[in-house]
Amino acid sequence: MADFLDFFSDTKTRPTAAMRRAMAEAEVGDERAGEDPTVNRLVARCAALLGKPAAIYLPSGTMCNEIALAVHCRPGDEVLCDTTSHLIGFEGGGPAALAGVMLQAIPGDRGRYSAGQLGEALRPDRPYAPRQRLVTVEQTANLGGGAIWPLQQLAAVASTARAAGLATHMDGARLFNACVATGTAPSAHAEGYDSVWVDFSKGLGAPGGAVLAGDTGFVAEAERLKLRWGGAMRQSGIIAAACEYALDHHIDRLADDHANARRLAQGLARLPGLRIDPDTVETNLVYFDVIDPRRDAAALCAALMERGVRMGPMGRHTVRAVTHLDVDAAAVDAALQAVAACLG
Amino acid sequence: MADFLDFFSDTKTRPTAAMRRAMAEAEVGDERAGEDPTVNRLVARCAALLGKPAAIYLPSGTMCNEIALAVHCRPGDEVLCDTTSHLIGFEGGGPAALAGVMLQAIPGDRGRYSAGQLGEALRPDRPYAPRQRLVTVEQTANLGGGAIWPLQQLAAVASTARAAGLATHMDGARLFNACVATGTAPSAHAEGYDSVWVDFSKGLGAPGGAVLAGDTGFVAEAERLKLRWGGAMRQSGIIAAACEYALDHHIDRLADDHANARRLAQGLARLPGLRIDPDTVETNLVYFDVIDPRRDAAALCAALMERGVRMGPMGRHTVRAVTHLDVDAAAVDAALQAVAACLG
Amino acid sequence: MADFLDFFSDTKTRPTAAMRRAMAEAEVGDERAGEDPTVNRLVARCAALLGKPAAIYLPSGTMCNEIALAVHCRPGDEVLCDTTSHLIGFEGGGPAALAGVMLQAIPGDRGRYSAGQLGEALRPDRPYAPRQRLVTVEQTANLGGGAIWPLQQLAAVASTARAAGLATHMDGARLFNACVATGTAPSAHAEGYDSVWVDFSKGLGAPGGAVLAGDTGFVAEAERLKLRWGGAMRQSGIIAAACEYALDHHIDRLADDHANARRLAQGLARLPGLRIDPDTVETNLVYFDVIDPRRDAAALCAALMERGVRMGPMGRHTVRAVTHLDVDAAAVDAALQAVAACLG
Amino acid sequence: MADFLDFFSDTKTRPTAAMRRAMAEAEVGDERAGEDPTVNRLVARCAALLGKPAAIYLPSGTMCNEIALAVHCRPGDEVLCDTTSHLIGFEGGGPAALAGVMLQAIPGDRGRYSAGQLGEALRPDRPYAPRQRLVTVEQTANLGGGAIWPLQQLAAVASTARAAGLATHMDGARLFNACVATGTAPSAHAEGYDSVWVDFSKGLGAPGGAVLAGDTGFVAEAERLKLRWGGAMRQSGIIAAACEYALDHHIDRLADDHANARRLAQGLARLPGLRIDPDTVETNLVYFDVIDPRRDAAALCAALMERGVRMGPMGRHTVRAVTHLDVDAAAVDAALQAVAACLG
Repeated sequence: MADFLDFFSDTKTRPTAAMRRAMAEAEVGDERAGEDPTVNRLVARCAALLGKPAAIYLPSGTMCNEIALAVHCRPGDEVLCDTTSHLIGFEGGGPAALAGVMLQAIPGDRGRYSAGQLGEALRPDRPYAPRQRLVTVEQTANLGGGAIWPLQQLAAVASTARAAGLATHMDGARLFNACVATGTAPSAHAEGYDSVWVDFSKGLGAPGGAVLAGDTGFVAEAERLKLRWGGAMRQSGIIAAACEYALDHHIDRLADDHANARRLAQGLARLPGLRIDPDTVETNLVYFDVIDPRRDAAALCAALMERGVRMGPMGRHTVRAVTHLDVDAAAVDAALQAVAACLG
Repeated sequence: MADFLDFFSDTKTRPTAAMRRAMAEAEVGDERAGEDPTVNRLVARCAALLGKPAAIYLPSGTMCNEIALAVHCRPGDEVLCDTTSHLIGFEGGGPAALAGVMLQAIPGDRGRYSAGQLGEALRPDRPYAPRQRLVTVEQTANLGGGAIWPLQQLAAVASTARAAGLATHMDGARLFNACVATGTAPSAHAEGYDSVWVDFSKGLGAPGGAVLAGDTGFVAEAERLKLRWGGAMRQSGIIAAACEYALDHHIDRLADDHANARRLAQGLARLPGLRIDPDTVETNLVYFDVIDPRRDAAALCAALMERGVRMGPMGRHTVRAVTHLDVDAAAVDAALQAVAACLG
Repeated sequence: MADFLDFFSDTKTRPTAAMRRAMAEAEVGDERAGEDPTVNRLVARCAALLGKPAAIYLPSGTMCNEIALAVHCRPGDEVLCDTTSHLIGFEGGGPAALAGVMLQAIPGDRGRYSAGQLGEALRPDRPYAPRQRLVTVEQTANLGGGAIWPLQQLAAVASTARAAGLATHMDGARLFNACVATGTAPSAHAEGYDSVWVDFSKGLGAPGGAVLAGDTGFVAEAERLKLRWGGAMRQSGIIAAACEYALDHHIDRLADDHANARRLAQGLARLPGLRIDPDTVETNLVYFDVIDPRRDAAALCAALMERGVRMGPMGRHTVRAVTHLDVDAAAVDAALQAVAACLG
Repeated sequence: MADFLDFFSDTKTRPTAAMRRAMAEAEVGDERAGEDPTVNRLVARCAALLGKPAAIYLPSGTMCNEIALAVHCRPGDEVLCDTTSHLIGFEGGGPAALAGVMLQAIPGDRGRYSAGQLGEALRPDRPYAPRQRLVTVEQTANLGGGAIWPLQQLAAVASTARAAGLATHMDGARLFNACVATGTAPSAHAEGYDSVWVDFSKGLGAPGGAVLAGDTGFVAEAERLKLRWGGAMRQSGIIAAACEYALDHHIDRLADDHANARRLAQGLARLPGLRIDPDTVETNLVYFDVIDPRRDAAALCAALMERGVRMGPMGRHTVRAVTHLDVDAAAVDAALQAVAACLG
């Protein structure tokens, strides 16, 4: 365990003892050749959960996004996404470098644009303009504060896209958080989306792994890109066993992360020098602004680290804190004390 | 000549008789091999005008932009430009497809962002983020209504970029318009910009051709891309002779286009059902909005065409009219009558 | 005119007085917008000549090749071509850089592989291998010495490709030479090929311009890439008028170039220190080897230039001489004298 | 364990019990953020072994190759490699699709070309030709039958490349086999090569993972591409622990694989209907040809599978068998019996 309370990200979780046992006992084979039984089982379960005919195992969520773009699009195409989209600033320019696509950013509400906004971003096809090809959503919206797209909004966006002849893709990095917070099934979110992926290395606590689902043709093309990019490993069942363990044991407990996030948000809201609306904290991501003119986000985070609490600066005045299975309510309270001390 | 008054674009001009004579008598050679004397002379003159050590002849302004991006950047890099930039919507997704770059759009004032805005768009380099590499400006700003970047604003942007280690590029599609309107030299605008191009097929009235200037290494790389993309022709001196003729005879007369544009704008401002601020018309581009609820821009343009006047719809409510050497003051007055009749 | 006899390339021809007149009088419009009547007429004539439903005007043959690759293929695909293909060494790495395709080179006979060789280069589709997508031929084969693909060989290759589900493309840079030499129609060569282009800046003597033909969907996609790459110009009818003039007046006379090439080859065969089989000279390209151990190709070409004759070294021991409308039989005889003097 | 003897590939090995224990007890952190102590230790050890200043952990050897190409080259560059190179046919067209590079294939001797051959493949730089940028070697040469590049040949190739201003890259998928077979250090092979990688999922028996080494600037760029391509995972120490275990325990034993491969080759050489020269079997890869006209490679492999032995057809007449830690001398003898029975 880290010798500090780590609210930096839900990707920081370390595998539990039980998850390690699952890995140690995993039945494995050559994943690249389709011979790993654990991977095959994980992939089939995810496809079913997401309501898609097929799915593929990949090392990371970023590869899921980037491969999906490259399968759906041809170079020069345009992808429509929210201004806060992970694609824009956190994937190393992959959309342009790997798929050759242009992004049009739609300024949604905390990461969620409306079908009407999408409609306004559409335009008639002209040979000199990028061809609009794909619409993406991110559930939950990370930089939107973990905000949840309502099911009807997802459906309306997908419907508007389909009516315009565009493909649809869902970045489901924290889709399970949305499902647990709203009591809905993953497949209900993914309905109408041509591709969707879930991640096991975030709130679910596995060391890595993501699964990208879609129809059979989509997944066959994704496999080609996986092989081209070197995303295929060999006895991947080791990691996939952790993913499967997470599916079985770590989904329902995301509710604890959400409760802890609200507890943190409410505590922060009571501290002077900070700004946060706890009602906007819907899942496990807590963003707050430092309004005390004497310090910025980086300075507060540095001071917190000295007190054994790690949070992440996200821009000049904004701090992000994330709850996950390695931080409990007591850790939240300790973190609140540390923040208060730093601000005092 | 067209059998209508063509305000659609300054690219519609046809070569004059004198320009045709210049083409017919042009001395030519194999341009691809650097053996065309007319091209060589044109290129040397442009380099001098723009204050750069070297320059290269290309078929179009779009190729100038796209090659400049590909020379300055590597795939995955980020280019900063105004939200109205020609790169975004009018070059077929080339920035992503050809150079592999991401665009960050800065919302400037009529196509012109400030050095301060640029500064806010900069961010520390992070390995997971696109690497910021290049800053571009467009003089004049086409979709900004032909607005002119003031020299000191250009200098401040270039200086901010350089301080951040970024390269700079100027799309000078209508740079000569800015020079004539302000009585300044092209090199004064291009100062501090690593690359810059001028276009001969717009207000200058040549059938094609553009020249991209920069330092020697930049131009050597641009030549490689020109050969790769098939932008090299053979006896290009034919067209270059028209460009050279335009340099000699069609620059000063851009002042007429600007006067005609103002005349048009002032006339439009007097018509009910339209909205335009004539003070914003600085060069030869006239954008106005149709606010009469009974018609949109496309409908107005269609009605105008029936009366022998062509203008271009630019979005649902906006119309663009462009003055150039094939439309004089009388044509402007005739166009105003046609607009009034359509609105009546 | 050049002050030397220029056998370097058939791209060196300068427009004749009559061709210049055609350009001076050309009816023009905005080509980028499809409004140039001369371009439109040229393109329609070429489509008919090539037996294809549609065609598009482009600045150069290289752009025809590179755009065809990018339309037919997706990144990661494999293109099969001869080892001597222009694509490999003369297009700046465009196949990989622009279309993202791998080339598999088939070692044909003087640039012409057989259907059997193509069949052996095919392989079953495997997800880890590049997907075979396109087969290309070059008529005539430039680096194959201007060798002509027989019609039945072209048909067999196209048929083998089609049976394997592959698209087909013909680089017709010197297709008219093949047609004149064999008394066959361009459409007979292009039959079975999904795309084909002809060039006007080589033996036909125009200053530039090429036309790429295919079916309607192919050409619509090619137009998008033309706009993206900046291959669209404005009043392109100026150059297109030269192309059209060439169509009308410079095709039949290619027979003179072929006769002159044979005359040159036969003369060279009589000189000691050189090796050439005149029977392999089928069109206007003459390749010969310098076997005199005292000099290499570059040295011979330098010595020839001092005597007012330009030929081109192509590798250490090989020289290329090309006949065209600016060199007649007398020029051939003068060149032979110069070569003899250099070798003496 | 598989219920058949698996000679298909050394990638088929399953982790041993001891290796699984190492994984279960691995100390881990967030690898993407540089916080995984096991990954950090593995990477540092590999850099030292390979004699390079820095190294990076990646999911697979293919990603090592593809990232190295993209770091060393710019789009349109040319990479020189052997005709048998893994890059050509087994990485999904990645060299063109991801790095935008052209490959020039040099026909070496069982996958190993000479410095002289490299010298002949070099050419003067011309703006219309792909720019030669990188030279690659594969140690051992997989499709060359596991042949080992002698150290002096590697040095001569690197020296020729450097003299021409080209970068150098070594695909070390089976470098440890070469080291064990010749009693030399990895760093001796990698000397003079700008980048080199080793793989843990082949003979070393780990479930995945590869390490790419080079100088500090190279590795910093490789990290950017790793993040862009989604090659970063989170608690990768799980797998890295298996890699480290393999470094400690599975290198010396590669000698057993080599002995078993020779035993297999010698046995096969005694069988009628097959052709193999056992003296060419230098490491753990055994290629042999089926010359019995009644069957091809695929048929023999299918028949073998029915007898519980898996080998892989590699082309119409060639079979590959690979020794590794899951097949011992007894397995070799059983396999020989099965082959004999199939041929009988």
